[in-house]
Amino acid sequence: MARFSFVCSECGARYGEREARYVCQACARSQTPGGVTRGVLTVELADLPTEWPRTGFDAPEALAAWLPLPSANALPALAVGGTPLLPVPRLRATLGMPHLWVKDDSRNPSGSTKDRASLLVVAKAIEYQCDTVACASTGNAASALSCVAAAAGLRAVVFVPAKAPPAKLLQTASYGARLVLVNGSYDDAFELSVAACNRFGWYNRNTAYNPFTIEGKKTLALEIAAQLALDAPDAVVVPVGDGVIVSGVAKGFADLVRAGLLPRMPRLIAAQPEGSAAIALALREHRATIISVDGAHSVADSLVVSAPRNAILALREVRASGGGGVIVSDDAILAAVGNLARTTGVFAEPAAATALAGLEAAVAEGLIGREERVVLAITGSGLKDATAAGRTSRLPPAIPPELEAVEALLSPEP
Amino acid sequence: MARFSFVCSECGARYGEREARYVCQACARSQTPGGVTRGVLTVELADLPTEWPRTGFDAPEALAAWLPLPSANALPALAVGGTPLLPVPRLRATLGMPHLWVKDDSRNPSGSTKDRASLLVVAKAIEYQCDTVACASTGNAASALSCVAAAAGLRAVVFVPAKAPPAKLLQTASYGARLVLVNGSYDDAFELSVAACNRFGWYNRNTAYNPFTIEGKKTLALEIAAQLALDAPDAVVVPVGDGVIVSGVAKGFADLVRAGLLPRMPRLIAAQPEGSAAIALALREHRATIISVDGAHSVADSLVVSAPRNAILALREVRASGGGGVIVSDDAILAAVGNLARTTGVFAEPAAATALAGLEAAVAEGLIGREERVVLAITGSGLKDATAAGRTSRLPPAIPPELEAVEALLSPEP
Repeated sequence: MARFSFVCSECGARYGEREARYVCQACARSQTPGGVTRGVLTVELADLPTEWPRTGFDAPEALAAWLPLPSANALPALAVGGTPLLPVPRLRATLGMPHLWVKDDSRNPSGSTKDRASLLVVAKAIEYQCDTVACASTGNAASALSCVAAAAGLRAVVFVPAKAPPAKLLQTASYGARLVLVNGSYDDAFELSVAACNRFGWYNRNTAYNPFTIEGKKTLALEIAAQLALDAPDAVVVPVGDGVIVSGVAKGFADLVRAGLLPRMPRLIAAQPEGSAAIALALREHRATIISVDGAHSVADSLVVSAPRNAILALREVRASGGGGVIVSDDAILAAVGNLARTTGVFAEPAAATALAGLEAAVAEGLIGREERVVLAITGSGLKDATAAGRTSRLPPAIPPELEAVEALLSPEP
Repeated sequence: MARFSFVCSECGARYGEREARYVCQACARSQTPGGVTRGVLTVELADLPTEWPRTGFDAPEALAAWLPLPSANALPALAVGGTPLLPVPRLRATLGMPHLWVKDDSRNPSGSTKDRASLLVVAKAIEYQCDTVACASTGNAASALSCVAAAAGLRAVVFVPAKAPPAKLLQTASYGARLVLVNGSYDDAFELSVAACNRFGWYNRNTAYNPFTIEGKKTLALEIAAQLALDAPDAVVVPVGDGVIVSGVAKGFADLVRAGLLPRMPRLIAAQPEGSAAIALALREHRATIISVDGAHSVADSLVVSAPRNAILALREVRASGGGGVIVSDDAILAAVGNLARTTGVFAEPAAATALAGLEAAVAEGLIGREERVVLAITGSGLKDATAAGRTSRLPPAIPPELEAVEALLSPEP
């Protein structure tokens, strides 16, 4: 049985598992509606394993030993994580970076890294005997929670802005979730989901609110280190919206350092689109606080937030790692979708391809050296929003089934 | 170095690797345009391994030992296969089938089983020093070939009916393939791709034409047996279009039997939609030959063919296994998309969910007993064609961000 405490990332207050559910009650008093979450709790396991798991971190027994769970039986029967770390020889050659890897997390069950958080949250909901889980989401967390809840037999209620990409909504509905389409922003959906959970007694999975979201995502880092022959890379480039994935990656490496299995943390590079760059801007301007982005927007829909909920912890972790923030344009993100697909065979949604656009920016700015060992976190599948790919990859005109038409289409070079 | 021969599945003629490329020249003389392929070649390895690979079949060294490849170095750096075999407790309970598994092959790099064939074909193209690979496809083979070719640095030219689902086309274009949209049927695209390969010297990957497509797909069966603790299931339900995946599954189990690692083959159940059921009909009517389906159609777009190219071998293998054919309606297929997603968390495209619809038909007809050990081959991701899911999973109306609106939406039960 893995015992643990909650620790407030702001004031350092410590809570037993039954003394807190979502955030630090003291710090949460400073919360303003729609703003950065105050008093985000992190999980501190009492006894970390002192050896690498022989089976890899995707085996249920290994997961349970590294997560705040009573046993491996608590995990839903769904193969979350265990995604490949690809050596990408052609992208290495293109960028002149011989030690680059792609962690292809698009190959999770619902197609995104969010499945990692949902797996742990659903396991805790079962342990707490809650039969309904809920969350607000720009799309991926909704489909992830619905997916894992379906496998586990829990009811899911998800609050999503009505303008989310249709494929994500149809996927979510297919899993049998109750879908609440909100005429409003992600922030509106967030507040509404919290109110509904309080009213109806549901268990809330909102990122940077439920502490198990950060803890669940740490398995991304555990796997990267195991796949790099039990070592840390020099840097990991992570697409950032709310700042939860980057904090989860930090937590995973930090736990490995604390367990004595790694000598150091990698530098974390937070990549954000220019229309939604509150965390990267604060990092670049050496500010302690976030300036909300009114009218935040980007082709990378999963990364669009006005006030990143997990900004306080994300800023601290990126700084502590010696990393930094980079800001990329929507054009650079769309180009990165194509570059990644054409050189590696990994088809990423725009939010995920932001990691590659961010790498190019980080190298240009000297934040990353070309000889360093670098991992790109590819956090979601391109099939989640194929229409975005259509903005750069135009389809050719249809032709009659005749060889001459093929020659004409492909000329000058057939 | 794994040595091998080609063996004609019709006349039994044997060819060395350099003596044949696509089909048996003698039998191919009987070929009629748009019809069943004559003289499909199978691969016979001279020396099969005599032990199970300790690393599992997705390790490159294990793959190379079981495939007609000179070495593991020939394989593109892309994690194809190694997909989970899920125990699906909730679907088991729903169906009253305690020994049911889902092989979730939607979690391949491009989202379908076709990646397995493309991996081997691209490896052979590199070995043969061809810089361009081509195929005709209803969509998934095109994106699979484009994906693996991108990772390997080969050029891909793919011929697809213009009415294929947009997500598949945009995915294919993103990989940088030259996309030839054909105003015509899959059969038209097939003939055109063969003509273009002959004219331009490209290497053709068409299923049931290039012998490495069947051989590549056999890894699905190798993995299933390894994941079932080195045993065969009693039956495998496979969605069938051209009949190549079912023949690949048969080949994998047959190789394990020939190697002395399994005592017997599973029964193979070929599931087809009623609008495109040439193989299943021939099985049910005990016919040796296929009757082409004029105007073949189904919501399961990947399975729509008028004359299944690989019908001769598929009929023989299904019969030899003691299995049979089942025919399901489009309504049953769409219902299966939802049932599978809601009970397992696996979101399948209609073609893939045809396996679940087929299982229910096979149980109703007594082809499969509820106590048997059964595997469903889920061959493609629901994100490949989310609009199909939209035919059964309707999105609710959007609401204002107010708790009362949530209560009204979810009533009678919030």
